Amino acid sequence: MDRAVARALLAPRSIALVGASDDPTKTASRPLQYLRRAGFTGRIYPVNAHRDTVLGERAWRSLDALPEQPDHAFILLPAEAALDAISACARLGIPVATVLASGFAEAGEQGVAREQRLRALIQGTQLRVIGPSSLGIANLHHNLVLTANAAFAEPNLRPGGIFCASQSGSMIGALLTRGSARGLGFAGLVSVGGEVDLGIGELCTATLDDPQVTSYLLFLETIRHAEKLREFALGAAERGKPVVAYKLGRSAEARELALSHTGALAGEDDVADAFLADCGIARADTLEGLLELPTLLKCIPARRTDAKSPSVAVVTTTGGGAAMVVDQLAIRNVSVIGPDDATLARIQATGVEVQPGRILDLTLAGTRSEIMKAALAELERSDRFDLIVAVVGSSARFQPELAVQPIVEHGRDGARVAAFLVPEAPEALRMLADAGIPAFRTPESCADAISAALRRRWPRARAAIPPEIAARPGRTLDEMEGYSLLKRLGIPHAPTATFSLSEAGSAPLPFDYPIAIKALDANLPHKSDCGAVILNVATDAERVQAVQTIAASVRARRPDFTIRRILVQPMMSGVGEALLGYRVDPQVGPYIVLAAGGVLTEVYRDRSVRIAPVTEETAAEMIQEVKALTVLAGIRGRPAGDLAALKAAIVALSRTALLPTTDRPSELEVNPLIVKPAGEGVVAVDVLGRLPLDQHGN
Amino acid sequence: MDRAVARALLAPRSIALVGASDDPTKTASRPLQYLRRAGFTGRIYPVNAHRDTVLGERAWRSLDALPEQPDHAFILLPAEAALDAISACARLGIPVATVLASGFAEAGEQGVAREQRLRALIQGTQLRVIGPSSLGIANLHHNLVLTANAAFAEPNLRPGGIFCASQSGSMIGALLTRGSARGLGFAGLVSVGGEVDLGIGELCTATLDDPQVTSYLLFLETIRHAEKLREFALGAAERGKPVVAYKLGRSAEARELALSHTGALAGEDDVADAFLADCGIARADTLEGLLELPTLLKCIPARRTDAKSPSVAVVTTTGGGAAMVVDQLAIRNVSVIGPDDATLARIQATGVEVQPGRILDLTLAGTRSEIMKAALAELERSDRFDLIVAVVGSSARFQPELAVQPIVEHGRDGARVAAFLVPEAPEALRMLADAGIPAFRTPESCADAISAALRRRWPRARAAIPPEIAARPGRTLDEMEGYSLLKRLGIPHAPTATFSLSEAGSAPLPFDYPIAIKALDANLPHKSDCGAVILNVATDAERVQAVQTIAASVRARRPDFTIRRILVQPMMSGVGEALLGYRVDPQVGPYIVLAAGGVLTEVYRDRSVRIAPVTEETAAEMIQEVKALTVLAGIRGRPAGDLAALKAAIVALSRTALLPTTDRPSELEVNPLIVKPAGEGVVAVDVLGRLPLDQHGN
Repeated sequence: MDRAVARALLAPRSIALVGASDDPTKTASRPLQYLRRAGFTGRIYPVNAHRDTVLGERAWRSLDALPEQPDHAFILLPAEAALDAISACARLGIPVATVLASGFAEAGEQGVAREQRLRALIQGTQLRVIGPSSLGIANLHHNLVLTANAAFAEPNLRPGGIFCASQSGSMIGALLTRGSARGLGFAGLVSVGGEVDLGIGELCTATLDDPQVTSYLLFLETIRHAEKLREFALGAAERGKPVVAYKLGRSAEARELALSHTGALAGEDDVADAFLADCGIARADTLEGLLELPTLLKCIPARRTDAKSPSVAVVTTTGGGAAMVVDQLAIRNVSVIGPDDATLARIQATGVEVQPGRILDLTLAGTRSEIMKAALAELERSDRFDLIVAVVGSSARFQPELAVQPIVEHGRDGARVAAFLVPEAPEALRMLADAGIPAFRTPESCADAISAALRRRWPRARAAIPPEIAARPGRTLDEMEGYSLLKRLGIPHAPTATFSLSEAGSAPLPFDYPIAIKALDANLPHKSDCGAVILNVATDAERVQAVQTIAASVRARRPDFTIRRILVQPMMSGVGEALLGYRVDPQVGPYIVLAAGGVLTEVYRDRSVRIAPVTEETAAEMIQEVKALTVLAGIRGRPAGDLAALKAAIVALSRTALLPTTDRPSELEVNPLIVKPAGEGVVAVDVLGRLPLDQHGN
Repeated sequence: MDRAVARALLAPRSIALVGASDDPTKTASRPLQYLRRAGFTGRIYPVNAHRDTVLGERAWRSLDALPEQPDHAFILLPAEAALDAISACARLGIPVATVLASGFAEAGEQGVAREQRLRALIQGTQLRVIGPSSLGIANLHHNLVLTANAAFAEPNLRPGGIFCASQSGSMIGALLTRGSARGLGFAGLVSVGGEVDLGIGELCTATLDDPQVTSYLLFLETIRHAEKLREFALGAAERGKPVVAYKLGRSAEARELALSHTGALAGEDDVADAFLADCGIARADTLEGLLELPTLLKCIPARRTDAKSPSVAVVTTTGGGAAMVVDQLAIRNVSVIGPDDATLARIQATGVEVQPGRILDLTLAGTRSEIMKAALAELERSDRFDLIVAVVGSSARFQPELAVQPIVEHGRDGARVAAFLVPEAPEALRMLADAGIPAFRTPESCADAISAALRRRWPRARAAIPPEIAARPGRTLDEMEGYSLLKRLGIPHAPTATFSLSEAGSAPLPFDYPIAIKALDANLPHKSDCGAVILNVATDAERVQAVQTIAASVRARRPDFTIRRILVQPMMSGVGEALLGYRVDPQVGPYIVLAAGGVLTEVYRDRSVRIAPVTEETAAEMIQEVKALTVLAGIRGRPAGDLAALKAAIVALSRTALLPTTDRPSELEVNPLIVKPAGEGVVAVDVLGRLPLDQHGN
């Protein structure tokens, strides 16, 4: 983004409030009130077609009437009038306009058309737009409170280091007030609305080199402008500024709401989740965990390798309180382990009676400041833990100077420590917040934030692979074309022989019985549903019968269709099977899915998703994530499967994303991929692919 | 419990503090300080073997030296000295003693022996004991603050209606302070410790007829004295006093901690969960949800039937904020639905522009008091919803008199309304708490509490079935004995024929091939692991071979063992199979488990548990809960299974709990139970049972 645009966005010297209302109870009157209350020092031009004054200040009848070209126009008019104002902004060379009105993509056909008009109006101009449906932007270090969100009515907003960008306008107010109550300061907040032009990625990137911004907090309903978001996340990581996110849409109901509320067709949540992880953005599942995450991430760096699984120490004055945190962490697969023997001995040498075990329970002795301080120092020194969680009981409320002070002192040196306070203890929370130490009010938010922090990886830079590929109509490949793609990628498939329908019952076979017989045609992608697959054919007679049965079944179910070709394969067996798919998400681009296949996989939604391409390390993680595949590791006396070959196949299929655009499929799914015993490999026995059509429709 | 004992517990006229310390920084000095600070009006006798005064008050050298027999002795001495004090209490006829010391069941062999001595000391006496490891008891309506928990140092503890009982001593302080901060008042709190004598059930029952107690809040690490707990829960339900619980132990790690922390071997969490549900106790998963649950339950009565699945309305001024609640509710399987057309039309007639949809989004218009009030009234009137959740945006913080007042007014009439406040809004929370309306700070606690409230059933009264049955050694039944029990319960099993080993290869069969051949012996409960099961035997020759193979396999793996008998069954097929088990938990007694069986069921831990016996309605719920069994409903073109027969089999097996003690098994598991197509029934094809030995060891 242009430097001038960035300045106009975040530190405008002059602002036009287009449609500013004279009625102080109206939303359109708020920006003027809030800017004045905040002490904004630039020039403000209320624009109102019907009035010479607004809230006692001079107003102008139109943008054209202003004495100068403002840096930033906040358009407070309804949708249709807002379009006229946008047109004027573009014509006048105003660099940035923010649009409050809703009534665009979320508002049915008419709204979608209106959004297209908005895009057309700014196309080819220098005008950059925030919104529509944006409640505005605030830069608290510059007293810029250019927003209609009622939360900014608050006087004395304390500036700080968090920059917040939200797709939900109301949430900037919620996050500001909740953060402030926790002693967290914000550098700025922006309600990005429908992101027709400027999205979260570009807006946040504009603040990357602002030394007053130290971390980013995103509230998402969907993913838009994915590659800009990735670029921003990488830039933030390079500058040591953590990015955290809360994303709606774990449930189908929420995805449906996002559609009706913002017009955004949210993709599957686990694909968005994989994208955020790939960008090194830590995703919280709880609202309170989200707010503590930026502080927590300052002491937990993003992982660059998969060296070891992270582990956490819990030191406490109260066993019951600590057990709540351990329980919540364990549910999220974060392991709490005790100190090694040497560390335990050194802690015991400080004179406190502690038992070996999963948690370090100092009991009431831990309320003595020097005991807790020594324990924290020894745990830190042991280098066994990615984080130390101090769980403080009632003393946190009544004697914070004893119970919390040692944590504050320990944490001052940038140590990896966080606190969970078991009682209500606002004073202790304030002490910890002031010292920049992550502190939690509930065991759930504590475990949620820690889990998100420990999962965070260094973001991956990626050559842009145009995700539009998915939106283009595609041509289904037949099974042989699919195998040919697999071969090119290096994924083994079962031997094949193809015949015309008339020869298929009798021609010599290049392999032994038992065999599988299938119709071969790109227009029959769901062969099994048409009765066009017969497995375990064991004799010549059965083979003749099978070919006839397939022909008859397809004729009965698809009278429009004639089978011409038959595919024959030897039956393959293994110790398990997997579904392995390459797909392209309209928002985030190519990704890869691993599942166990079969009806239960759908029931349990047991799958692992990653942005493609993936490394071997990531492929190994994916195998571990699919619960049904744990049986392939050889549990309960079963033979182990060839997990190395499965890993290689995942990597290979994910590299579909790197094929030349002309012959890169938009979908390629192996189902099933037979996993043979260890050392014997994997083999694809069915494949479904789709190639996008080129501009000639081929 | 004796009335006199109850009075001594909750409203003692005189108290002995045995081991009261003169050092005000010591734990053993706290009860005297707190009792004085709270203005306790009864007589207090500090007992200290070494001093004539304690904290400036007269002290006595021993319990024997006291001028009267106190109602309640709080024993603050270490474990061994505490046993001596218990002995004195029993001898002197003191009705109640509370023991602070730890060092009992949680402290290894020595501790277990000490606990046995404690039990022996009180056996046959009138003395009732709270603890050990009890931090004491408080009755805030009587200024009784008989506790060593530092949270009670607080002056001006506001009495209210919640009675809290906790197995973790530190949590009474955490819950008191957290509740107070939310405007919730407590009637009393008790730290029950190890529950050697008085458990949560008896202690809470003692307060049931206290009009100042209106609800109960439990913090559990395990379940002890299950039947007393059930009796209490039933009594509470009959008096319209809701009972809510938080229980540690969702994770194996937390169960391990509970063992080291309290000495309680916590059973499987889903069995405890089923028990709490059976008792009508609403279990929260979040700490904040727990605190709001008592208020919420006052407007959501316990369900007595399964008439319809509950549904929730969400009305809001902020779409983004409401979406968070919908998302969290949906994750917990609570459905949010919109108003019917007539209701929507009536709401629109009040002049607000709202769209049909899953949530009722009043947008900014909803901040007008009369709009929100009318919407709430119409939703309530429609009778479609079990609860209405009002989600309030920034106006909750800045204009609570507009945004929250209509909810307060609506809720005053006992309406089914709760609030979630999107911003930080302490003033609004206070207004709602004062009006007795459940109000939530986070979407997670909101959805958690609502989900727990809507699941709550009316508690079941049950004739006590002695759970000790599980602790007695048992005798494994052979498969034929198992079938005979199933027959008695009315569960069909596959036809059987038994032969001596020598006849098994050749004797005439009463049914056709293919058959299953198995060794029949009670001493081979895990037949498959010994190679003693061969399925799909299709010919006479295969049969001869199979019998020889089984004999050889067993000989190889169990050289000590000789096969004498063989069981033959026809192979049975169906559209699916299930594992159906009756078991007895040492804490909660008989329960029933339904799972899909097979290795994946273990991986996914996909099972449904209920306290036995169950009704048909409950059996139907169980089938719905097991995700793998959803395929039996006939998804994806598969044939549907006979769910009615499965339901009947669940009910039948659960009635094992009602068999006469002498021949009631302690375990009876059908695995697999073949589920045939709809109308064709179910059939057991293997069974494993265990009968407890009688006093003669038979």
